[in-house]
Amino acid sequence: MKVITGGVCAAKGFKAYGVHCGIRKNRTKRDLALIVSDKRATAAAVYTTNLVKGAPLTVTKEHISDGYAQAVICNSGNANTCNANGIEIACQMSELVSKTTGVKAEDVVVASTGVIGQPLDITPIESGLPQLVNGLSYEGSGEAAEAIMTTDTIKKEVAVEFQIGGKVCKIGGIAKGSGMIHPNMATMLVFITTDTAISSKMLQKALSGDIQNTFNMLSIDGDTSTNDMVTVLANGLAENEEICDEGEDFNTFMKALNTVTVTLCRMIAGDGEGATKLLECKVSGAEDLNTAKTVAKSVVCSSLLKAAMFGADANWGRVLCAIGYSGADVDVNKIDVSFVSNKGEILVCKDGAGVEFSEEKAKEILLEKEIEIKVSLGEGEYCSTAWGCDLTYDYVKINGDYRT
Amino acid sequence: MKVITGGVCAAKGFKAYGVHCGIRKNRTKRDLALIVSDKRATAAAVYTTNLVKGAPLTVTKEHISDGYAQAVICNSGNANTCNANGIEIACQMSELVSKTTGVKAEDVVVASTGVIGQPLDITPIESGLPQLVNGLSYEGSGEAAEAIMTTDTIKKEVAVEFQIGGKVCKIGGIAKGSGMIHPNMATMLVFITTDTAISSKMLQKALSGDIQNTFNMLSIDGDTSTNDMVTVLANGLAENEEICDEGEDFNTFMKALNTVTVTLCRMIAGDGEGATKLLECKVSGAEDLNTAKTVAKSVVCSSLLKAAMFGADANWGRVLCAIGYSGADVDVNKIDVSFVSNKGEILVCKDGAGVEFSEEKAKEILLEKEIEIKVSLGEGEYCSTAWGCDLTYDYVKINGDYRT
Repeated sequence: MKVITGGVCAAKGFKAYGVHCGIRKNRTKRDLALIVSDKRATAAAVYTTNLVKGAPLTVTKEHISDGYAQAVICNSGNANTCNANGIEIACQMSELVSKTTGVKAEDVVVASTGVIGQPLDITPIESGLPQLVNGLSYEGSGEAAEAIMTTDTIKKEVAVEFQIGGKVCKIGGIAKGSGMIHPNMATMLVFITTDTAISSKMLQKALSGDIQNTFNMLSIDGDTSTNDMVTVLANGLAENEEICDEGEDFNTFMKALNTVTVTLCRMIAGDGEGATKLLECKVSGAEDLNTAKTVAKSVVCSSLLKAAMFGADANWGRVLCAIGYSGADVDVNKIDVSFVSNKGEILVCKDGAGVEFSEEKAKEILLEKEIEIKVSLGEGEYCSTAWGCDLTYDYVKINGDYRT
Repeated sequence: MKVITGGVCAAKGFKAYGVHCGIRKNRTKRDLALIVSDKRATAAAVYTTNLVKGAPLTVTKEHISDGYAQAVICNSGNANTCNANGIEIACQMSELVSKTTGVKAEDVVVASTGVIGQPLDITPIESGLPQLVNGLSYEGSGEAAEAIMTTDTIKKEVAVEFQIGGKVCKIGGIAKGSGMIHPNMATMLVFITTDTAISSKMLQKALSGDIQNTFNMLSIDGDTSTNDMVTVLANGLAENEEICDEGEDFNTFMKALNTVTVTLCRMIAGDGEGATKLLECKVSGAEDLNTAKTVAKSVVCSSLLKAAMFGADANWGRVLCAIGYSGADVDVNKIDVSFVSNKGEILVCKDGAGVEFSEEKAKEILLEKEIEIKVSLGEGEYCSTAWGCDLTYDYVKINGDYRT
């Protein structure tokens, strides 16, 4: 398996593009994205568990219920959530895509992201679609990735190439972060495409399994969004024998999918609102998987630890504190904690108590952009990883006045 | 019932004081507090549910297990948590109190607050105690309240006077915030004293009941501290007939206790680390009490809403989002949301969707220091209140470099 370029268009038969249609005031910011498969594709999706759900999710869920889709439309700048006419607008979006591309309206995945509770005007979408469809190309992933960004500072694309039964297959994806992220079941907006032939059932199984260790282990700010969604479209143009069961091919697919999702997770975490650092908590030695996950997630969610990481302060007591209130049943006296980065590794806590360490060396390690918080529970064989970011002045700034 | 001055010394027979003994480097900051009752008192306490528990809590729990205590010693600047010799030091603290005051070591409540994981040196405590005991007075609440402060910017004292069976009774307390606050069972450090005669059993019942609606409904940053503790000492010097059962007297006592604890909650929330505003979420119309509490707490815990309140931005979508992921089973289409302050009240969401409102008026309301977020669920008769604060640059600043 190797990482390749091309993002959401890396897989055979997927075109994409993004334009500025006028939902956002800033004319230099693209706000409408479209992804279209040359061929109707099997489709799978996972959605936020927030009871307050964006209208687009309801429409997408219905459209995907038969296991197929062919296009994805997504706007930024407005979440189309908590609006009286939300469903109507989301349906209109899929009908407009149908009219301009020929894809059936029931095969359109609809997504929106941005401010909650402001009616979404269909006019700019209607007037922008012809230009958007016109621009569709097999190299358009970058523009689509840009168009779904909200407070993201970098566009997020990834793709991998692998083989199934001698056939070259590809999976690629784009994602948008970067605030209101604390996934539970699914998260944020992630659109993944593949040319692998795989049944709807196995595609859903792959996605639902994968997110438990990827997007559901990611937190920016503890707020589970109303509009989270991850979708995968598989158009089969790689011409491998369709994956209809578990087995070697399915495992190969899962592994490739996982590379794509972990990469997107790390990109989202590293570009969290206001973030200056990617935090990765690697827990090992847990008695069971649930304990490992609970501990890892609690650590990356701690506001106090996140602020300490911003300040490059090796305040490991906050790691222990977060483990202690996580709800996991652990023996505090067996916990070891180290901080790791490109500059090396430093042990700061052994058997639940502090050890002497060089503050200077710790500072050097923590000043890096990617920090690993290594926690060993000393009780078993299970491990887990969670991703997050530091808490900074800019998070407050961005969210102190998001709407204006 | 009326609010009076005197704090933790308002009740008859309680002396207190606070000094700088040298645990903190800053010589102008008191760091050791002592409260002593003239008479052995019934005692009750609640503790953090964090698995990582400060050594002082273990010692206090043992000392209070017989239902009695007579003195409280508390240092700031060091939490005496995650240290190999923590228990030993906490025991030495109570023995030193015994030696200098004559109170039995087993009747001493021991508490510490500050950095986790740094050994606590007994030397400054030993050398500071004579001066501390010497300064004890019936007017010493303020000095004790100062000595337990960490990142608090104001000392927190309150007291009330009421009558039981014709006898004048008093309850008073001091508290320290202001970060690592997300109580679960108990929170922070709160020391309450009363001259009411009340059995240990009923005192514990009163405290355990009260905190469910007071300290457990408070959050500064989602981090449950390792050293949270609330204790009450009741020395009976008011000479009322001892409260040994539920009934009118117990209810009067509960009401007075609640006034003290709610006041301290509001003080702690309003003085949260870096906070510029007190947030109070009042939920009504819930189908059951648990729903009301879950919703109220989720709203005051949302980092996004807290940042919006800092920016005086009426971003009510974040209130709905936080309700949606709270886990409470509510009908989104029945939810109303208003923002309230001294400058008036403004309805921003009706039946789960936005209503037109004056952004100017909303700004005026949200620029105040105390903001009420009023949520009506439209489904039943239950209500609940939770307290929190805004998320600010200063929270990040304080916690980016707490140890140095």
